[in-house]
Amino acid sequence: MKKINVGLIGFGTIGAGVARVLLENRQVISDRLGAELKLAGIADLDITSDRGVKLPEDMLLTNDVNALLGNPEIDIIIELIGGYEPARSFVSRALQSRQSVVTANKALLAKHGNELFALARENRVDLYYEASVGGGIPIIKVLREALAGNQINSVCGILNGTCNYILSRMGDEGADFTEVLKKAQELGYAEADPTFDVEGIDTAHKLAILTSLAFATPIAFDKIHVEGISGIKPADFAFAREFGYKIKLLAIAKKRGDCIETRVHPTMIPENHMLAKIDGVFNAVFVNADALGPSLYYGQGAGMMATASAVVADLVDIARNLIDKSMQRIPDLGFQRAAVIDRPYRPMSEIISQYYLRFSAHDKTSVLSRIAGILGENGISIASVIQQGRSHNGDTVAIVMQTHKAKEQDLRNALTEIDQLPVIAAATAVIRMESDL
Amino acid sequence: MKKINVGLIGFGTIGAGVARVLLENRQVISDRLGAELKLAGIADLDITSDRGVKLPEDMLLTNDVNALLGNPEIDIIIELIGGYEPARSFVSRALQSRQSVVTANKALLAKHGNELFALARENRVDLYYEASVGGGIPIIKVLREALAGNQINSVCGILNGTCNYILSRMGDEGADFTEVLKKAQELGYAEADPTFDVEGIDTAHKLAILTSLAFATPIAFDKIHVEGISGIKPADFAFAREFGYKIKLLAIAKKRGDCIETRVHPTMIPENHMLAKIDGVFNAVFVNADALGPSLYYGQGAGMMATASAVVADLVDIARNLIDKSMQRIPDLGFQRAAVIDRPYRPMSEIISQYYLRFSAHDKTSVLSRIAGILGENGISIASVIQQGRSHNGDTVAIVMQTHKAKEQDLRNALTEIDQLPVIAAATAVIRMESDL
Repeated sequence: MKKINVGLIGFGTIGAGVARVLLENRQVISDRLGAELKLAGIADLDITSDRGVKLPEDMLLTNDVNALLGNPEIDIIIELIGGYEPARSFVSRALQSRQSVVTANKALLAKHGNELFALARENRVDLYYEASVGGGIPIIKVLREALAGNQINSVCGILNGTCNYILSRMGDEGADFTEVLKKAQELGYAEADPTFDVEGIDTAHKLAILTSLAFATPIAFDKIHVEGISGIKPADFAFAREFGYKIKLLAIAKKRGDCIETRVHPTMIPENHMLAKIDGVFNAVFVNADALGPSLYYGQGAGMMATASAVVADLVDIARNLIDKSMQRIPDLGFQRAAVIDRPYRPMSEIISQYYLRFSAHDKTSVLSRIAGILGENGISIASVIQQGRSHNGDTVAIVMQTHKAKEQDLRNALTEIDQLPVIAAATAVIRMESDL
Repeated sequence: MKKINVGLIGFGTIGAGVARVLLENRQVISDRLGAELKLAGIADLDITSDRGVKLPEDMLLTNDVNALLGNPEIDIIIELIGGYEPARSFVSRALQSRQSVVTANKALLAKHGNELFALARENRVDLYYEASVGGGIPIIKVLREALAGNQINSVCGILNGTCNYILSRMGDEGADFTEVLKKAQELGYAEADPTFDVEGIDTAHKLAILTSLAFATPIAFDKIHVEGISGIKPADFAFAREFGYKIKLLAIAKKRGDCIETRVHPTMIPENHMLAKIDGVFNAVFVNADALGPSLYYGQGAGMMATASAVVADLVDIARNLIDKSMQRIPDLGFQRAAVIDRPYRPMSEIISQYYLRFSAHDKTSVLSRIAGILGENGISIASVIQQGRSHNGDTVAIVMQTHKAKEQDLRNALTEIDQLPVIAAATAVIRMESDL
């Protein structure tokens, strides 16, 4: 039986998962592939910690990455160290040595993907990255292959399990952000420094990749508007429920004519939408395509074994390419290079959305008419209003509105004016509402 | 640019959808594939009806299937006529002529799949069938490729939009089966003769395919236990809700040790399970795999454009195989031939399930203890009971129970005995409950 040798760089949690899958599921993998996918070596700075994996005697465990990189015996390199450097150098070196690479590193691809894909093409090897978005969910394969007959209208996802866990708990329990974050950290669902997750950066890295796959354009992380979830208050969940909505941190990429719109922010979505039904640490991606229509892909967005499932699927695909001598069979972003072109991004100020607005007003009777007046002058019409009776705490009262569709810039102009009114006690809370994903 | 010629047999609704996608999305397809996917000919008995598709001047439209079958200019044949014959002969003839085939025909594959796959292998061409299960949902690709590193524990699906529409409406409105079926027929969601759908046959055809993909075993439609939805009463939905469950027609395939369990029947599932959240005509497949864990794939299970999306994805995959000379790159059922072996199926009488039981009793006070006694003698323990107060209509009253896990044979024995009791007014209604999908 033909043998494909795999070298793993990074023996942390995910690395240990990949080793386990390759070893424990060796039989089912070769039953599918018709060849052996052999874990030939692992490189990590720490090769003494017990990872809970029984490694084969004849396997190389080394802290010298050079034993794997450029080694002509190793067909495929798995990069699981994360971050920009030395990941970028290692991946580059592998590709230049004509080793194919599998990575789960969304940050690396969001920043250096274009350059690394070019390197893979030049060297006629593959750079696969299923595990970089949505953990075990095969969303990259779906977009690159399964939707090949479609023009994609939009891709929207819940791509960060930490945020979805926190928002689910806040919604269920009426609890405060800081409180739930602390619980999430205790349970291991959030990092000690949760900034990357809760401020939306991790989600945006993933969205940068999905956007390029959907719309045939180079990866452009810096075009994404990013807002995190730390500003959401328990009251917002209660009002969302009254409107029939849920609050999720959504990654949104839409095609609007020739323009692309990409943004990550807390979003109210109707409670009967499939994305509203995704609870806890799970991820899901909702795709709207011209032939297929709406479809959704749901699963574990993180975790050692789920992520390993995606890594191994990539290994099997690349192994088939090696066996058939069909490297670069699927173009990196799903489109032939000539079709991947820079496209205009719509500035955030130009997007059209419905808005949830929570005003903190001193308890004055005239305040609603003043707010409505300023909104109206800026071309924003109100769809519905909830006005609390009396204030419970001190002298402010919440006035909550759902607007009809409006332009972001118009809303910002109106809010700048409104927030300067003496009757307004604090900056107005704004959450975008999406009904047509 | 290289050109791959496609011949379409069957110009009905789905065929028209495929023609539309190939023509309207020609650019995006060639941008992805790097070759032209050309609709070279269409054969149908009726070539005069207007299908709403503007066909190119140079395209062959014929009622002679022989103009396409075996024509060396045509690389791939699409079979969309449905049914067993002449579909089987046409597909066989294409494969024998070394034309690859794409089909949406679940009935054909459920009955003759093993023989047709063998023919494809012998002739070193591909027989792809993404559209045969779940319409546009790429579940075949997911099972054959994306989960390659996993052992599958179970696959459960809502695979028939007609049934899911009917059950959703019955649940929402408390309406009767016949009434909702009539509405579904008026709306075009159900056929004039709905037997294939509502009796579960269509779902079972699809399950036969999924079972083989999940468990590396030849297609065995006749091993599937099939029950339809026509016996479900509005009362069952009301009681299900009280227990916190929803009723769905589920296709279930599980691995239990070395045994396979395959069954199609109305099933109560906990309302917070993802499959319970699938409403209306949509389909979804829930997969439990050892590395990935739970995942779900959701979309339109029928309809001209969604099904066409799946057909075209297959065409693109096969076109890549033609270009790379890598036919049979993915084995037909996802496993190398030697690994596809007959496996024991668990007889239905041996399955373990929880059960919902609705007894129709004459309003006698002793009846509950008699039922409980007989269940107990047969090793079945009761998890909870709902007993209606007085009967509303005549002299029967409903006693509803949820059992703990029990063996199907034990339940059947108990019910045979219970249904003969003079205090029992009608055959007991049974719905299996699944909490661990």
